[in-house]
Amino acid sequence: MPKFDNLTLHTDFYEINMMATYFEKHMQDRHAVFEVFFRKLPFGNGYAVFAGLQHVIEYIRGLNFTDDDIDYLRQATNYSPEFLEYLRHFQFQGTIRSALEGDLVFANEPIMQVEGTICECQLVETAILNIVNYQTLIATKASRIRTVVGDDPLMEFGSRRAQEVSAALWGSRAAIIGGFDSTSNVLAAKEFGIPISGTHAHSLVESFGNDYDAFKAYAQTHHDCVFLVDTYDTLKSGVPSAIRVADEMGDRINFVGVRLDSGDMAYLSKRVRELLDNAGYEDTKIFASNDMDETTIASLKMQHAKIDVWGIGTKLITAFDQPALGAVYKMVAVEHADGKMRATIKISGNAEKVSTPGKKQVWRITDSRDGKSEGDYVTLSDEDPRREKSIYMFHPNYTYINKTVENFDAKPLLRPIFEKGKLIYTVPTLKEIQHYAKKELASLWPEYKRELNPQKYPVDLSQKCWDNKRDIIEKVRQYVQQINF
Amino acid sequence: MPKFDNLTLHTDFYEINMMATYFEKHMQDRHAVFEVFFRKLPFGNGYAVFAGLQHVIEYIRGLNFTDDDIDYLRQATNYSPEFLEYLRHFQFQGTIRSALEGDLVFANEPIMQVEGTICECQLVETAILNIVNYQTLIATKASRIRTVVGDDPLMEFGSRRAQEVSAALWGSRAAIIGGFDSTSNVLAAKEFGIPISGTHAHSLVESFGNDYDAFKAYAQTHHDCVFLVDTYDTLKSGVPSAIRVADEMGDRINFVGVRLDSGDMAYLSKRVRELLDNAGYEDTKIFASNDMDETTIASLKMQHAKIDVWGIGTKLITAFDQPALGAVYKMVAVEHADGKMRATIKISGNAEKVSTPGKKQVWRITDSRDGKSEGDYVTLSDEDPRREKSIYMFHPNYTYINKTVENFDAKPLLRPIFEKGKLIYTVPTLKEIQHYAKKELASLWPEYKRELNPQKYPVDLSQKCWDNKRDIIEKVRQYVQQINF
Repeated sequence: MPKFDNLTLHTDFYEINMMATYFEKHMQDRHAVFEVFFRKLPFGNGYAVFAGLQHVIEYIRGLNFTDDDIDYLRQATNYSPEFLEYLRHFQFQGTIRSALEGDLVFANEPIMQVEGTICECQLVETAILNIVNYQTLIATKASRIRTVVGDDPLMEFGSRRAQEVSAALWGSRAAIIGGFDSTSNVLAAKEFGIPISGTHAHSLVESFGNDYDAFKAYAQTHHDCVFLVDTYDTLKSGVPSAIRVADEMGDRINFVGVRLDSGDMAYLSKRVRELLDNAGYEDTKIFASNDMDETTIASLKMQHAKIDVWGIGTKLITAFDQPALGAVYKMVAVEHADGKMRATIKISGNAEKVSTPGKKQVWRITDSRDGKSEGDYVTLSDEDPRREKSIYMFHPNYTYINKTVENFDAKPLLRPIFEKGKLIYTVPTLKEIQHYAKKELASLWPEYKRELNPQKYPVDLSQKCWDNKRDIIEKVRQYVQQINF
Repeated sequence: MPKFDNLTLHTDFYEINMMATYFEKHMQDRHAVFEVFFRKLPFGNGYAVFAGLQHVIEYIRGLNFTDDDIDYLRQATNYSPEFLEYLRHFQFQGTIRSALEGDLVFANEPIMQVEGTICECQLVETAILNIVNYQTLIATKASRIRTVVGDDPLMEFGSRRAQEVSAALWGSRAAIIGGFDSTSNVLAAKEFGIPISGTHAHSLVESFGNDYDAFKAYAQTHHDCVFLVDTYDTLKSGVPSAIRVADEMGDRINFVGVRLDSGDMAYLSKRVRELLDNAGYEDTKIFASNDMDETTIASLKMQHAKIDVWGIGTKLITAFDQPALGAVYKMVAVEHADGKMRATIKISGNAEKVSTPGKKQVWRITDSRDGKSEGDYVTLSDEDPRREKSIYMFHPNYTYINKTVENFDAKPLLRPIFEKGKLIYTVPTLKEIQHYAKKELASLWPEYKRELNPQKYPVDLSQKCWDNKRDIIEKVRQYVQQINF
């Protein structure tokens, strides 16, 4: 049986190969800074909701090469005994700064920063991206769905379609951060403190052979009842049976709702609403679940479908229309042989793909009069716009798009999580995180929040940050031109 | 810290709610049969490659409600003390038959079958689907990519973009089943016995500030060298530096290859091939990795790109173009109060979505003269086509499409895995599974294997199976018509 309780080797082989080179070259303690960012917001959305920090924290705390890991590396590689010994005693002593779960984050700004020895920074790349990419994607998708449904209850139903076990579990949690109310996954509910939802499947009806007997049995064994009405025929059998059982059981049950899981939801929900209302069950809700996402929900709302509660599965938990966020982890500064830190860059033929060198901070700029968002201002880490009276913000590629902002508040996005290996941050409860995300979203202008063609939220570089980038690009250009092998 | 070492509660809440009803109604020991199937092949492919069995086996073996689980359910639900006590002593005693990993599987046929008490069958639905849906999807995607690259080495590079940790790990394994050669994930390599691949990232070059020093350091610390050449400028700096280092190091290294990770792969690979050949490195390979899938690979092959080795990430590990398989788990038979087993059905307005009732077997029919596939023949479980001289195969919806087959071999797809709770199957090594998948694929006509618009492989019902389905649909129709509340 494979063992995945220790995730230290959950990393790309090249990370450990580079660690070997640094070690053998006596560079293993060189100081470095890496930053996580993505280049494009997912789903054409105007913002992303950051998630994954709790799992990253657990991962970092668990880092430790076991004897078994070392034995494996000994037989699978040509690493020296000294390097293997170094790994055996490896401890993560780095500093991590990060956006907090529930923070709104945007393209081309650091959302997490890892600082420490070049070896420890390198080791953690893969797992951090693996976790942050997925959870941020799902929290963002959930937030889009929340925007479309308004205040309707939203249930996460995706476990069976999730991409393996940890996506089902951590995906549930990310959905809550993005604004969902409950999950059908009992383990996620237990471990993360999420309300659980779910009643029965078609199989219950099939095992009794008819709707009435199945609903009756369910009602006799559960107080809160949501009957799934589409096993044989929603309008002729399912709903009439549910009503009959509710009539018979009276106060002994709470006839919470009926659930539709197939067929034309717009048509059926209206007809079902009539049947329920005519029977005097005006407060009984209509639940719907059938491969829905923000687009189908918006369409159903336009058609005045009488759906009160939404169960969302596949399209949420796999981020079906864009199943990867694409965040990357790039070195932005490294100590050289002379002991000096120097900013680093990855050049690309595509201007938008050139990384922004230097250790940075992101400042969320809001208007101090109404608290509304002005944009994000990316600076080098030694700058502090809170000391300035006004800031000049300009688009990093189209510099003629610019503005000068006064009367502003500036809040740093990257906050300390680990300080030299020590965890100095306490993850809030999931409820607090969800509440925080909602509050952050409220500070964003509606134009950035609409799910179709949102206005682009400004992510601007400080003059110093921009000058630094230009200087380093020029240095690389000179280096490439002078090559003469 | 959340604990996910025991997956018993990794299930949808409605499963346990139904168990509660069955228990309170003294139906918990009623016998039932459930089957897993999907309705549509993914990616427009002509077949799927079954995977996930090993993880399902581990999951089933680990089933056991802990005291902690029971405590949670006590406070989160209104379950009776007797039912909670029943759960505390729950043991999976069911029988599982399944396709084997590496088997080719098709739409609308059972690929796994769970038989046992209605309670134990219900509990395992969510996790089985969660695992089989994902792993089968990835093995199938990998197989499509394998088809397009021919015999070129294929490396799985997707961990950082996988949907959380278990997708990265089990996804690596599924990729190997589908025909990949290696993974970059060290933990997956260790636990599943997969060859590892990977050398260094852009950060190595950035930490030295130039390609030459970085490659030299790498070459001094590793024997097998693949240099990543696109950090600053592939043709002017990366490849010339790699060649210079190889010249200087001579026999002390094995100059395996250079890796391209950005830019126009068709153009760059040809120019890089020239540079390498002109320097006398005709055997040095060109590795490429940059958001590739079977479509971009086919296009690069058409353009005669000089790529020898392929690193595939995001598009494989997330099954980017269709990130969910959509397999379902349906009750097909259940014991009634009279002790008799009766077939069950889920009716849908859409003919293709009506499930096929009855406990079944799938027979892979091949021509006994050349071993080539004739199609799959779905029968009730008490039929055995091996006793027949000829079989009449017809399309389950378009019955005028039919043929009579003689001189055939019939091989059952569903094989015993658990027998009344006891594991009676030994999972082969991953290498054996990969070999098996390759052999199975060889028996399929090429028309079913092309990645674009493949011919539809026949999945036909036996006359008895079809008659049974028609009878039960008719019975349900009569039931619905007679309802008169």
